[in-house]
Amino acid sequence: MRFEEPLELASGARIADYELRYETYGSLNASRDNAVLICHALNASHHVAGRTADDPNGIGWWDNMVGPGRPVDTRRFFVIGVNNLGSCFGSTGPMSINPATGRPYGASFPVVTVEDWVNAQARLADCLGIGRFAAVMGGSLGAMQALSWTIQYPERIGHCVAIATTPRLSAQNIAFNDVARTAIRSDPDFHGGDYYAKGVVPRRGLRVARMIGHITYLSDDDMAEKFGRLLRTPDYEFGYEVEFEVESYLRHQGDKFSEYFDANTYLLITRALDYFDPARAYGGDLVQALAPAQAHFLLVSFTTDWRFSPARAREIVEALVVNGRQVVYAEIDAPHGHDAFLQDDERYHRLVAAYFDNIAAGLAR
Amino acid sequence: MRFEEPLELASGARIADYELRYETYGSLNASRDNAVLICHALNASHHVAGRTADDPNGIGWWDNMVGPGRPVDTRRFFVIGVNNLGSCFGSTGPMSINPATGRPYGASFPVVTVEDWVNAQARLADCLGIGRFAAVMGGSLGAMQALSWTIQYPERIGHCVAIATTPRLSAQNIAFNDVARTAIRSDPDFHGGDYYAKGVVPRRGLRVARMIGHITYLSDDDMAEKFGRLLRTPDYEFGYEVEFEVESYLRHQGDKFSEYFDANTYLLITRALDYFDPARAYGGDLVQALAPAQAHFLLVSFTTDWRFSPARAREIVEALVVNGRQVVYAEIDAPHGHDAFLQDDERYHRLVAAYFDNIAAGLAR
Repeated sequence: MRFEEPLELASGARIADYELRYETYGSLNASRDNAVLICHALNASHHVAGRTADDPNGIGWWDNMVGPGRPVDTRRFFVIGVNNLGSCFGSTGPMSINPATGRPYGASFPVVTVEDWVNAQARLADCLGIGRFAAVMGGSLGAMQALSWTIQYPERIGHCVAIATTPRLSAQNIAFNDVARTAIRSDPDFHGGDYYAKGVVPRRGLRVARMIGHITYLSDDDMAEKFGRLLRTPDYEFGYEVEFEVESYLRHQGDKFSEYFDANTYLLITRALDYFDPARAYGGDLVQALAPAQAHFLLVSFTTDWRFSPARAREIVEALVVNGRQVVYAEIDAPHGHDAFLQDDERYHRLVAAYFDNIAAGLAR
Repeated sequence: MRFEEPLELASGARIADYELRYETYGSLNASRDNAVLICHALNASHHVAGRTADDPNGIGWWDNMVGPGRPVDTRRFFVIGVNNLGSCFGSTGPMSINPATGRPYGASFPVVTVEDWVNAQARLADCLGIGRFAAVMGGSLGAMQALSWTIQYPERIGHCVAIATTPRLSAQNIAFNDVARTAIRSDPDFHGGDYYAKGVVPRRGLRVARMIGHITYLSDDDMAEKFGRLLRTPDYEFGYEVEFEVESYLRHQGDKFSEYFDANTYLLITRALDYFDPARAYGGDLVQALAPAQAHFLLVSFTTDWRFSPARAREIVEALVVNGRQVVYAEIDAPHGHDAFLQDDERYHRLVAAYFDNIAAGLAR
């Protein structure tokens, strides 16, 4: 979808015109009340579910959650996935040509916030003729967008489904992001963000950034279970190449990531994470920040998620309860750490399915 | 101390001749039974206590623990600090000239293990005329050396004082080490480890490595307490330079470290950490691994240490108890994470002081 009207950003900058890439699943019903928006986290995209025709590996990132017969059942709901502004999967971002200069934006692409994304998503909804979403849903950074919808457009969202999230990053979360950004920005191939014209990519930095991130997505227990101290070599080799299985796994994740993800987008999205803090405008008072919300809420956290621990989801739940909102909250005992939100977990999926069944029951016939 | 006899290493390699830099505090008594060896962790040195005459900032890394009137009281104990083989503070390491080539060892310096360090320390003890240590003590990686002393030289160590340690790294611990090493090794200034001749230092990689490490030394709570989401700027700047206090702190730590620490040493020491696993030779049975130990033990862990959590110290304690060893174990409720072992904490210091009082009471007159 192409947008000609400039978008004013939280930073004061504006994007003159831009495109958002999106994908839809299922059909909008006659009363236009069955639309569900799925918001993505750091490295995902509009391609939420199903399989891309020309790419046998292109399975949607939340395909176990969204589809016919899945918890978010596309036989009943009209589901929209949208690639956020500044991301690198088809929407306007640092890799795009800046119409003002004829060259890629690169370092000049403005920093965007969760709130900016929500504004851009609301415009997309306008264009698709969706006045109100039955639900807005996401995990992690995606859930921050869903939360922000309830504050920015309270009348346009029926249910907010926020998985594995937090009302704000902690100092430790910001620290991990900053190390990742430092790795990227200090890669000599970064060229201050304007590497496109040089025909290079700061792959080494991206690789390190992804390796750091990946550790924080998994739980200590899960890593112990999956890899422990298993060696790929028969014995210690007394060198620095891959010996432990966990090294092999992480380096592989880093390599893969550095092949497909844009470094400027990594900076931009981690900064949006850092900045998210709806209570900030109210002196840290989350109750006040969430006061405008009218939606019903489902919040889910996972016991072994040390990136965004259950305690942080409970902070949101408590603020909503004080505001008299209707909240379902579940803390799922799952071994997979932060990544649990993407995994097949029966109790988690059954809960989300039941919640969406209830939403479906409330839709106009 | 210069050693002319070659040292055989666990890897099968040998160091032809080498030097160990050491520092002593207090005096060896007539019966030569009051010696205490202090082993260092990743980035520390022989300079354990006191102030270097020509360097006003050169306070020993464990000066709050070792000295006259301190828990390890140098009026009663003869304390030795030694810079380990492969480190970069005066002992033979990758920066040293390889006598066989006349050039710095660089990448050709052999990988050494905790066990190798203990062997080298035992030789130093021989030269100093110390047959048996009253105690060997360390924190983190230093404590691994103290533990290893009880297995390799059971008759030469009276007490093992092991703080904030673990019987082996977890997959997550190894993962963090590997990311740090990847950051260093992928810095174009690393030149495969032979950067000395090029007149450069892989400073960017070292900086990232240190930033990652530093996050794991602090607790989440401590970081929240110290920095929270405090900004250094009046408001969000919508860029990637330092805005949050925690970014400023971490980058400063990384910068400082990259000025004084050798990158090859960082690889070598983190690999020694990865490899430490005394139970490995016994199919993972720590009880068997610790069977030779005759020492008495003090183990201390800290509640907020998520790098080497109390559960991992308890694993050592249990294996020692099964072996019928005498063990004092304390879990100190301290906010400072892994770094707590270096901090002034009254209960922790009082405990160590009392333990060393008892050791002193048992010394010959």
